[in-house]
Amino acid sequence: MITVLAGGVGAARFLQGLLAVHPFSDITIVSNVGDDCEFFGLHVSPDIDIVLYHLAGLADEEQGFGLRGDTYNTLDALTRFGYDTWFRLGDRDLATCITRTQLLSRGLTLSQATAEIARALGVPVAVRPVTDDPLRTKVRLDSGLLDFQEWMVHRRAAGPVREVIFEGAERARPAPGVLEAITGSAAVLLTPSNPFVSIAPVLAVPGVRDALRETGAKVVAVSPIVGGAAIKGPAAEMLRDQGLKVSPTAVARLYVDFLDAIVIDDVDSRLAPEIEALDRPAGRPPLAVTVTDTIMASMEKKAALARAVLQAAGLTP
Amino acid sequence: MITVLAGGVGAARFLQGLLAVHPFSDITIVSNVGDDCEFFGLHVSPDIDIVLYHLAGLADEEQGFGLRGDTYNTLDALTRFGYDTWFRLGDRDLATCITRTQLLSRGLTLSQATAEIARALGVPVAVRPVTDDPLRTKVRLDSGLLDFQEWMVHRRAAGPVREVIFEGAERARPAPGVLEAITGSAAVLLTPSNPFVSIAPVLAVPGVRDALRETGAKVVAVSPIVGGAAIKGPAAEMLRDQGLKVSPTAVARLYVDFLDAIVIDDVDSRLAPEIEALDRPAGRPPLAVTVTDTIMASMEKKAALARAVLQAAGLTP
Repeated sequence: MITVLAGGVGAARFLQGLLAVHPFSDITIVSNVGDDCEFFGLHVSPDIDIVLYHLAGLADEEQGFGLRGDTYNTLDALTRFGYDTWFRLGDRDLATCITRTQLLSRGLTLSQATAEIARALGVPVAVRPVTDDPLRTKVRLDSGLLDFQEWMVHRRAAGPVREVIFEGAERARPAPGVLEAITGSAAVLLTPSNPFVSIAPVLAVPGVRDALRETGAKVVAVSPIVGGAAIKGPAAEMLRDQGLKVSPTAVARLYVDFLDAIVIDDVDSRLAPEIEALDRPAGRPPLAVTVTDTIMASMEKKAALARAVLQAAGLTP
Repeated sequence: MITVLAGGVGAARFLQGLLAVHPFSDITIVSNVGDDCEFFGLHVSPDIDIVLYHLAGLADEEQGFGLRGDTYNTLDALTRFGYDTWFRLGDRDLATCITRTQLLSRGLTLSQATAEIARALGVPVAVRPVTDDPLRTKVRLDSGLLDFQEWMVHRRAAGPVREVIFEGAERARPAPGVLEAITGSAAVLLTPSNPFVSIAPVLAVPGVRDALRETGAKVVAVSPIVGGAAIKGPAAEMLRDQGLKVSPTAVARLYVDFLDAIVIDDVDSRLAPEIEALDRPAGRPPLAVTVTDTIMASMEKKAALARAVLQAAGLTP
């Protein structure tokens, strides 16, 4: 069994590769829910959906969100009624949100609703929200506290970010199966996702980080930082805002208490020694570093990266 | 002031003519809500919307529902999630439903939500649901009781209809302004709408029928039955199911306790004497009959019909 802690697009692309080289029935995806939001009374789970859409072969991969060939007729009509429509929900994407909202209003948990939606979209992999309880990522700027999507989409992730908080995290319980997946897997993989707003909200659910520390699974992260920049999104700026170097070493340090290995890009190979030399909690061996091509520019490269990650986890793919 | 009791398409078309010949600020539309329904968690008010869309110049007049040029991408995507999609809500139509649902969930009444939507669509006329309370039309067939839209749209109004009931009607209160509009107007007009499923649910709200009996306004109906058939919809079959003749006389009889005049089509002119001879409650003069062309085939004809109706109500348009 393999458990994958997943954020948005980076996770979705990595998972495409993983599914190409590993049996899907052996994989559990644990998804961030901190970027869930409500628009027009509908419950939107952007990270869950982008993963589902990619795995269903329906994603608009160029745009990085939503469904390929989707239209925006409902959204455009909503502007007439005074709604903000900077969060671009396409017409078919709305159908997913309407379905999720309906399932939740009938009393299903987010886990159950996600399973229903995955089944309808023909995604055979288990996709679990990290929690069924409300957990919302908020970003503090000098000007105040913003909802995650308001900051990320509407403000285009403009910084500096002073703090990221996960509202509700203290009271959030891990969704059924999440801790079991982490403790019962041979490997736990952290996708190349933003450490602060994609992976951190997963780790913020009480019990998750402890399970990662205690699991017998090999825990392997793929660095989302390559050559001093983020592959996508504001991770580099967020590292800089904290006075940290934009490097895989900074990423490794964030996970140093539970990680076994990190996969970094060829361009960063010179950093392997400093990562291997990072201080570790008592009893933990030095971090292992795998150097490979982490840029997922094609299906072949996604599969190759997945193979390298599985090898780093001690599995022969 | 003129008050118009309105059903769906027939009402919408008649109102287009009325607005062409009478100042809109003098008109209050009281709409049927018995055909309101919920699809996908959204509150749909088909009769209100078809009137608003016609008056906004946005209606798909050929199809008889929805918005001109609308698409069905969300609806088509919903089929994947197992939803019945026989009720054709277009993408832009959904925006209206999403808005209404949101406004209601924020605690606005249906009257208030309707006013907001009308304003956003640029409809300057007062459109009031007859009640803000739940009132749902149901149709009893030999096979059982059906929700109105299930019968009307999904079953294509297949009969015979044994009974029409208005669930919630006994407890429904007239929406603010409804009784005042009826009692304070110079004329109350009944649009050429189905007497059993468009007008009857309006009359079923306690106080409405009494207000019509007691108002000093001239109450004038336009017959939806022309030449032994309904202009649109199942009114003729419903008359037959009750063993009644399919004629304006049968329509007039349904309103005989409060009507002052009925406008019938040229092809039914021979029926004027039998309508004028209908038994009336004590103190009421015989029903007046106006014979004219009631087929609203063009804007000119809609306006001409509206003029004839206003004249029948003693108003010079």
